[in-house]
Amino acid sequence: MKTRIEHDLLGNKEVPMDAYYGVQTLRAIENFAGISNYTIGMFPNYVKALAMVKWAAAKANFELGLIPADITNAITAACEEIIDGKLADQFPVDMVQGGAGTSTNMNINEVVANRALELLGHQKGEYQYCHPNNHVNLSQSTNDAYPTSFHLAIILTNKEVVAEIKLLVDSFRRKAKEFEHVLKMGRTQLQDAVPMTLGQEFEAYAYTLEENIERLNEAAKLFLVENMGATAIGTGINSEPEYAEICARELRIISGEEFVLAPNLIAATPDTGACVTYSSELKRFCVQLSKVCNDLRLLSSGPRCGLNEINLPPMQPGSSIMPGKVNPVIPEVVNQVCFRVIGNDTTVMMAAEAGQLELNVMEPVIVYALFNSMQMLTKVMDRLRILCVDGITANADRCKDMVMNSIGIVTALNPTLGYENSSRIAKRALTENRSVYDLVLEEKLLTKEELDNVLRPELMIAPKKFYKKK
Amino acid sequence: MKTRIEHDLLGNKEVPMDAYYGVQTLRAIENFAGISNYTIGMFPNYVKALAMVKWAAAKANFELGLIPADITNAITAACEEIIDGKLADQFPVDMVQGGAGTSTNMNINEVVANRALELLGHQKGEYQYCHPNNHVNLSQSTNDAYPTSFHLAIILTNKEVVAEIKLLVDSFRRKAKEFEHVLKMGRTQLQDAVPMTLGQEFEAYAYTLEENIERLNEAAKLFLVENMGATAIGTGINSEPEYAEICARELRIISGEEFVLAPNLIAATPDTGACVTYSSELKRFCVQLSKVCNDLRLLSSGPRCGLNEINLPPMQPGSSIMPGKVNPVIPEVVNQVCFRVIGNDTTVMMAAEAGQLELNVMEPVIVYALFNSMQMLTKVMDRLRILCVDGITANADRCKDMVMNSIGIVTALNPTLGYENSSRIAKRALTENRSVYDLVLEEKLLTKEELDNVLRPELMIAPKKFYKKK
Amino acid sequence: MKTRIEHDLLGNKEVPMDAYYGVQTLRAIENFAGISNYTIGMFPNYVKALAMVKWAAAKANFELGLIPADITNAITAACEEIIDGKLADQFPVDMVQGGAGTSTNMNINEVVANRALELLGHQKGEYQYCHPNNHVNLSQSTNDAYPTSFHLAIILTNKEVVAEIKLLVDSFRRKAKEFEHVLKMGRTQLQDAVPMTLGQEFEAYAYTLEENIERLNEAAKLFLVENMGATAIGTGINSEPEYAEICARELRIISGEEFVLAPNLIAATPDTGACVTYSSELKRFCVQLSKVCNDLRLLSSGPRCGLNEINLPPMQPGSSIMPGKVNPVIPEVVNQVCFRVIGNDTTVMMAAEAGQLELNVMEPVIVYALFNSMQMLTKVMDRLRILCVDGITANADRCKDMVMNSIGIVTALNPTLGYENSSRIAKRALTENRSVYDLVLEEKLLTKEELDNVLRPELMIAPKKFYKKK
Amino acid sequence: MKTRIEHDLLGNKEVPMDAYYGVQTLRAIENFAGISNYTIGMFPNYVKALAMVKWAAAKANFELGLIPADITNAITAACEEIIDGKLADQFPVDMVQGGAGTSTNMNINEVVANRALELLGHQKGEYQYCHPNNHVNLSQSTNDAYPTSFHLAIILTNKEVVAEIKLLVDSFRRKAKEFEHVLKMGRTQLQDAVPMTLGQEFEAYAYTLEENIERLNEAAKLFLVENMGATAIGTGINSEPEYAEICARELRIISGEEFVLAPNLIAATPDTGACVTYSSELKRFCVQLSKVCNDLRLLSSGPRCGLNEINLPPMQPGSSIMPGKVNPVIPEVVNQVCFRVIGNDTTVMMAAEAGQLELNVMEPVIVYALFNSMQMLTKVMDRLRILCVDGITANADRCKDMVMNSIGIVTALNPTLGYENSSRIAKRALTENRSVYDLVLEEKLLTKEELDNVLRPELMIAPKKFYKKK
Repeated sequence: MKTRIEHDLLGNKEVPMDAYYGVQTLRAIENFAGISNYTIGMFPNYVKALAMVKWAAAKANFELGLIPADITNAITAACEEIIDGKLADQFPVDMVQGGAGTSTNMNINEVVANRALELLGHQKGEYQYCHPNNHVNLSQSTNDAYPTSFHLAIILTNKEVVAEIKLLVDSFRRKAKEFEHVLKMGRTQLQDAVPMTLGQEFEAYAYTLEENIERLNEAAKLFLVENMGATAIGTGINSEPEYAEICARELRIISGEEFVLAPNLIAATPDTGACVTYSSELKRFCVQLSKVCNDLRLLSSGPRCGLNEINLPPMQPGSSIMPGKVNPVIPEVVNQVCFRVIGNDTTVMMAAEAGQLELNVMEPVIVYALFNSMQMLTKVMDRLRILCVDGITANADRCKDMVMNSIGIVTALNPTLGYENSSRIAKRALTENRSVYDLVLEEKLLTKEELDNVLRPELMIAPKKFYKKK
Repeated sequence: MKTRIEHDLLGNKEVPMDAYYGVQTLRAIENFAGISNYTIGMFPNYVKALAMVKWAAAKANFELGLIPADITNAITAACEEIIDGKLADQFPVDMVQGGAGTSTNMNINEVVANRALELLGHQKGEYQYCHPNNHVNLSQSTNDAYPTSFHLAIILTNKEVVAEIKLLVDSFRRKAKEFEHVLKMGRTQLQDAVPMTLGQEFEAYAYTLEENIERLNEAAKLFLVENMGATAIGTGINSEPEYAEICARELRIISGEEFVLAPNLIAATPDTGACVTYSSELKRFCVQLSKVCNDLRLLSSGPRCGLNEINLPPMQPGSSIMPGKVNPVIPEVVNQVCFRVIGNDTTVMMAAEAGQLELNVMEPVIVYALFNSMQMLTKVMDRLRILCVDGITANADRCKDMVMNSIGIVTALNPTLGYENSSRIAKRALTENRSVYDLVLEEKLLTKEELDNVLRPELMIAPKKFYKKK
Repeated sequence: MKTRIEHDLLGNKEVPMDAYYGVQTLRAIENFAGISNYTIGMFPNYVKALAMVKWAAAKANFELGLIPADITNAITAACEEIIDGKLADQFPVDMVQGGAGTSTNMNINEVVANRALELLGHQKGEYQYCHPNNHVNLSQSTNDAYPTSFHLAIILTNKEVVAEIKLLVDSFRRKAKEFEHVLKMGRTQLQDAVPMTLGQEFEAYAYTLEENIERLNEAAKLFLVENMGATAIGTGINSEPEYAEICARELRIISGEEFVLAPNLIAATPDTGACVTYSSELKRFCVQLSKVCNDLRLLSSGPRCGLNEINLPPMQPGSSIMPGKVNPVIPEVVNQVCFRVIGNDTTVMMAAEAGQLELNVMEPVIVYALFNSMQMLTKVMDRLRILCVDGITANADRCKDMVMNSIGIVTALNPTLGYENSSRIAKRALTENRSVYDLVLEEKLLTKEELDNVLRPELMIAPKKFYKKK
Repeated sequence: MKTRIEHDLLGNKEVPMDAYYGVQTLRAIENFAGISNYTIGMFPNYVKALAMVKWAAAKANFELGLIPADITNAITAACEEIIDGKLADQFPVDMVQGGAGTSTNMNINEVVANRALELLGHQKGEYQYCHPNNHVNLSQSTNDAYPTSFHLAIILTNKEVVAEIKLLVDSFRRKAKEFEHVLKMGRTQLQDAVPMTLGQEFEAYAYTLEENIERLNEAAKLFLVENMGATAIGTGINSEPEYAEICARELRIISGEEFVLAPNLIAATPDTGACVTYSSELKRFCVQLSKVCNDLRLLSSGPRCGLNEINLPPMQPGSSIMPGKVNPVIPEVVNQVCFRVIGNDTTVMMAAEAGQLELNVMEPVIVYALFNSMQMLTKVMDRLRILCVDGITANADRCKDMVMNSIGIVTALNPTLGYENSSRIAKRALTENRSVYDLVLEEKLLTKEELDNVLRPELMIAPKKFYKKK
């Protein structure tokens, strides 16, 4: 393998000749490779965001006269290539790393510098013409470039999560429409309660999941606060006074996102509060998604000894020993991903709490946990929608039979028969194992016509006038 | 003890004659007393909120002609007394209970009914004149009255939490002002970084904590969505069509809070998403408060073998064996409360995930965990402010000496001496155990005047123009 | 109120004349009262353990000639009174406190000293005759006396937890015997699987819960390692060489527990590993107890639209709006306590991780969380056993009907009919909504007698010979 | 691509001709690929364990006459190849999957069957000669083969974790020996306490980490309980009475591990208690490992404005903006891995609690979380040892200076000067910013010789006789 020699504080090191990354990336590989098995390159939005941040900084440095036009143009051109998905294999550093993200920052600095060198007609490694630190990283430190870039990457990835939620909500909503006339028993505390429609139940799922879109988007907005210009600890040492605001403007331009400069850069630099909030909202979504999947598994339990109100599409044989058994494998895997995301939230919380003084050195594991959660969720929601929800069918007769055989419908007779009669009928039904319907007729409390009228689904599943006014 | 006989589904039971609560409250005591050792009555905001909800429902029922004026007036008068803090000892039910809050709801129903009976000139227990269920609970079920009331209680209690945060922020900010000229070394990853002022550090604490006020208030707003009119499962069975909106209006009137009716009552009834979000924001606050306390303990470490940059007020002798030792006991107890709140967040998450179908029966432990967290935090912030932050003093000379002896100030010389000279000086300083200041003078790189000028605090702690423009 | 003046490092302070505690306890009240609302005195085992540790230290100090016989006797007599439950109201310090337990240690030191003074014929506060530090705390520091005493207290309280688990296991086992002939459908993934008996299911609950007894006892054994003699940081400064072993021996005598001295006192002093392990085993137990309660709620779901295999005793009316509804309130409250214990485990983990250098200052919240968990669990298991499990009844006919109507019994026909026939029958049964039993007879695959024989419960619920040997 | 047609309950499917896996593995890929990005094949111990379980079952089936010798031999030969690491690329199913592990079980069944077919001289897919279900999976279901195999895999992987801990402990212990004469200040609550040696501190790290070996090994023993013979739900339906014990024996033979058959197979089948316990002990280890790394970062803080007692080997440049800065990147990445393992423990807990009735369908995410934790820990401990601990050096002079300048050494003077003199000296030292040493000499309380004698390191860091006996 042909190599070139690069140098840093710790000495010389051979770098593969065709590598765009350099000596510091190599050290990071030696120190951290395989820790999480997830490299930066596995999260394309992250690579894209890093390049956008470097683009914005270069523009700001140029405007302040700190780097000449040709170098600036080479840097921004290199960044644009990376934004377009090129050099995607040049980001081999593990997501989980010591050094508070320095290795990630140096990985992008080195790749941009070497690509810029090529564009300027030089060889990779001829850093005298365009240097990873002196040019690409100028007016920056890891402590501002790293958080700003993962902020942007989360904003980009959140859009993908939210888009999948929307598709999933639509799927539930289509089913809600399809099931709007399927009368079924509502249950509280797993005990028979009062009637509703399966459509109402699925619309509630849609609505509950949908609410998370706003929650996630609100939380993602917190990442629009960025700290470029903070440099080492937020004091802005070694940056020029106008730099921060110019850089913010350029960042808005290249990203199209409404970034604002943090009002207090010293507070902003070690702050991972937005990560905690966003991770918590992912957790909230998973708490609710898991509940919905629990419900789908309950409602499809059976086929003979369970609730059996709905059927999930069969996806694979369920047993090697029990002929014909099919399991709800898709909701099951969704539950498991939710538990994983919730575990990631614990990781985020602990890492956030471990910040000390002017920096939170645990940011890399926070970033990794968030991307891991977002990626898993996006994928598994796709499966849930396509392989499960879209294909759910209702057992309408079974649902209706349970309502009609239930004691719970006695609640609907309350206003007509009075609480005392209702209670007596309820008790007889339970003790004698008979239906409320039959008992009401047997006791001639109502005619069949009257009774059928009271038990009309549309009257049991919504408010109605029924009290005699005094 | 004189008693009266009351009756419910399970039979008769003797109730103490002077108790305003009744048979169902008694059953709850038998079932749950001592589980958490926290009764409803220990959270006055909660009792107040329960009474406000009953007040609003009574007003709505009256407007719809469902209960006559005299009973309505007695009910609302009883509620107003409770809102004013009376009958505070009549809420003995444990916060943690089975039944999804039915016991809490019946506790308030019974107390209001019996007090209303007295106001109407009847004896306690003469429910034919004013009944806990038929009158006080009319058009309601636990499944709407319970969540609506704890929503309100959290809104009320959040104000107390936020007020304490504000006081604490002010305290840090006063110190920031006091310390604005104390130059000290900033640290990243516990390693010496670059200079800042102690004032900047304390202002960052103030700012970081202050941001949580908005986060908590935003999260608390989610509780303004209420579900009165949902009755059993959100279909509104046995309520009149206009009831829900009228009740919402009355709830706004009595509480002064901008409640809105949930757009989807079936989704709203089992939904604990707002609890998850709010608990998570409490967790976020604790993550940051804990970090600040960790910092205070670090900065005050010593007195001789630590950083010793600040002094915390001594609150108690620190050791029985080491003469003169004093410990940072107040930040230490704050850390511990933070860990407890974070533990409560785990409880909330698990309980929220355990909802099934049309209800989340685990709500009581969620509510308990939230109130417990808010109460502990409010109390411990008061201690932190009064017994610690307000009395912090700075060791300004010590702070400045460390800056001047540091190698980190070499960063400030970068623009003047160049990176190469700076690196060489840094290495000499470390190896020879000498000061950067002395070495620069010894090597005659700058005159003493020039050097003192570069190292002026106001130039090291903010951006400045220093690059030669090309 | 009459008072006496006491003095410590921070100055003078008035102490109520009749208080056995002194100035340092008072400071702790001022600093920490109400933080958790749980005082030391609310955990009698803890007070008892503190007194035992002081007893053992006094005996060791006497044997080494460090305190004279009369003072020793007064101290041990005072300790014995406290061990017997006297002076129980003299421990008002909040469980959650800064100072790593110094306040707790000084509370017991002061109470013992003042009671010893009385026994010696002196007035409370005349510490020249018997001093909280110089005599009661001699050869100790908080850093050894505090962990040793909570170790002992946990050992004592674990016995209570385990005793309740045993009673609960016995209750499930009695039910297992009672239900040993109730044939029912087993379910995997909530889908109908193969038959079993309700007795087998309840025996599995008993067995699973019972396994936790050994786990908890094994974990509790870790607390038998104690560090008396470590003094400040484990080096044993200001203790005599023989002291540690003598104290260990005396601790074994007074407690009856097989304590051993930690082999490495510097490692032992900040170590909270045993707490993490024990808390985790409490968590494990709760994970399994919660699962059992989830099952009880599933199996009793209905009565008409659920599984309805068992009936839980009704404990309170379940709804104000639905006549006759009764909810499984006891399992529900058990689930909630389990979530709380799991939350406490998060607290313990965070506090354990926060140890620094030679001490873990977060021990008080660990201790509090553990006692809180043990106390809640002990109480709620009592409720579960008495108010729920002991009264469970089976719906044997319903259970059997489901088995006979199930498709799952086809698995039992596999060896007789072959996999192909079985699959075909299974598919017909599902599609045509008919029973496997009827189809087998209709297709004349077996006679009724043969079929009944194959489907004999005792043959379906255990291994049997059925393959034709080749 | 050449394919063959395979068939299952859901129909036909084309399988790549050269694939050893079959139709059900393909369905699993379609359903779950990419969910966690970790396939079974990425955990070689797991593949090995699956093959050992199939080997043992085949041997047992043969002994009972259920499969003929030639097929048995082909199956066991195929298993042995897999145990030896062959066919490692044939396990593409994602670790996180619905179906409670059925896909994993069918993956191994299919690979073994097809390799056995080749060994028997048949083509892949000619299942009439050796069938994944009828032969390889005979007398088994996923519900016994899956947990048994992951039990074994965890046992194997635990050995690797423990081996790495041992190496790490040895490394700390070597440093303890190296530093045994480096006197330094011990700290409690970050406040100066009393002297110790750096060797004592490092030996405490070694000891504390070492204790976890026994904890992990004890927890791993719980996995020696296996449930082969349980079949579907633990009743053993469709297995022969002798099968379970024979299989256990064969499993002991092939694995060399002391497996025992679970006493209650119905309890054992859904039980994930061992996973909870083992995960918790991993968490415990991480809590302590994280604390040690926090300490290393504290002790190496500086170089000028921190404790600076030790130096960690520099691994990479620490900053692009601060010349000469080097950060403790290796301890930092260890902390982050610890937070991840702790997050995995949350996942395990939630998944364990979600078991229902006769099975825990969430086992796959539990298994994944455990392997992920073990793999990350093994890797990062290697880094910690080689790249950090082995290269730590002490700043002995700095350490000693701090002791001698400390006020804490006054504790050692207590027995000689008395508490009153000691306190006065301590106060003077703090107020006048002078050394205890100088003040004692100045006040002529001791001669220099006497003083030096009292302050001899070996007398300050251990118990000693010093009290005048009465």
